[in-house]
Amino acid sequence: MTVYTRPLARLIEQLQRLPGVGPKTAQRLALHILKRPEADAQALAQAILEAKQQVGVCSVCFHLSAEPVCEICRATNREPHVICVVADSRDVIALEKTREYRGKYHVLGGLISPMDGIGPDQLNIAQLVRRVSKQDIKEVILAISPSVEGETTTLYVGQLLKPFTKVTRIAFGLPMGGDLEYADEVTLARALEGRRELDL
Amino acid sequence: MTVYTRPLARLIEQLQRLPGVGPKTAQRLALHILKRPEADAQALAQAILEAKQQVGVCSVCFHLSAEPVCEICRATNREPHVICVVADSRDVIALEKTREYRGKYHVLGGLISPMDGIGPDQLNIAQLVRRVSKQDIKEVILAISPSVEGETTTLYVGQLLKPFTKVTRIAFGLPMGGDLEYADEVTLARALEGRRELDL
Repeated sequence: MTVYTRPLARLIEQLQRLPGVGPKTAQRLALHILKRPEADAQALAQAILEAKQQVGVCSVCFHLSAEPVCEICRATNREPHVICVVADSRDVIALEKTREYRGKYHVLGGLISPMDGIGPDQLNIAQLVRRVSKQDIKEVILAISPSVEGETTTLYVGQLLKPFTKVTRIAFGLPMGGDLEYADEVTLARALEGRRELDL
Repeated sequence: MTVYTRPLARLIEQLQRLPGVGPKTAQRLALHILKRPEADAQALAQAILEAKQQVGVCSVCFHLSAEPVCEICRATNREPHVICVVADSRDVIALEKTREYRGKYHVLGGLISPMDGIGPDQLNIAQLVRRVSKQDIKEVILAISPSVEGETTTLYVGQLLKPFTKVTRIAFGLPMGGDLEYADEVTLARALEGRRELDL
């Protein structure tokens, strides 16, 4: 005797494979899908299939794209001489949401992590070096998290690119709205190290 | 300029229609689906479609079922003379998980709620009365939440069934592990009201 009828059990099982979805959430989502009209279920299933089939990566910057070259690379109203290097497409999305950055991107597809068997060859680093060496790039901004793997990757990529262009990295310090008293020591040390003169 | 490529935006939009899934969760789920192999996306889409197409309700008890009569109603090793009445299939699943109940069920499909335009005729109440009046039912257990709508439904259904059989309702009181000090007054009042003599 199972608690769920077979097709429902299969749906719950599939939903549970999604990140952050446990048994209770999977059950709630599945029962919701069963309650809504069939058109809704079809729209969801179709969106899943179409996204997976149509979205690949941009051949220039490796950001997620439904076209061979992504919208950002094709955009003529963006600064073409600045490239922001990130680990993942998720980071491009986060940076785009700030509406502060108007240059181009390059997605590495991960971070160097010998422990996980990920070396520079598994990442889109050679393509980045080619891009920077062949084009007139004025600045490469490394926007990579300050983890062990992030530091390794930042140093490795930075050294490769230095012969061709100016290489910078994003600032680390106290987050906005963060309370100094509760910041961890490494963040505080970074914030001190990155101090700048006040514009008065 | 949109932050997401079109098919990705559509997938995020569809995922956001699920309960408890906000923009951030939808983005995380969508990017996960894009990262995994295509077979995974197909399995998920298929599970959604099949569940929606194959799962209807049992013609006897109205619990979710992929067969005309559900597994619980067909089971010969369950007490056929006791019916537990619940608002929703979700409640059947919750009760089945306790493994304490061995009788049959009847799913009303909601609660009487004049404010939402839901009267007794929109629920599976007539079918319940028919079931109880025509079969040899020894007890009907009303397992309905103690909300305003739940109380109304409990009283309404209870009065209809009383001529035919014994009608009981589940106990309300302090939840297990609950702290008396933090229980709300209504729960405490119910717990007092439902007190029983200690078996010593």
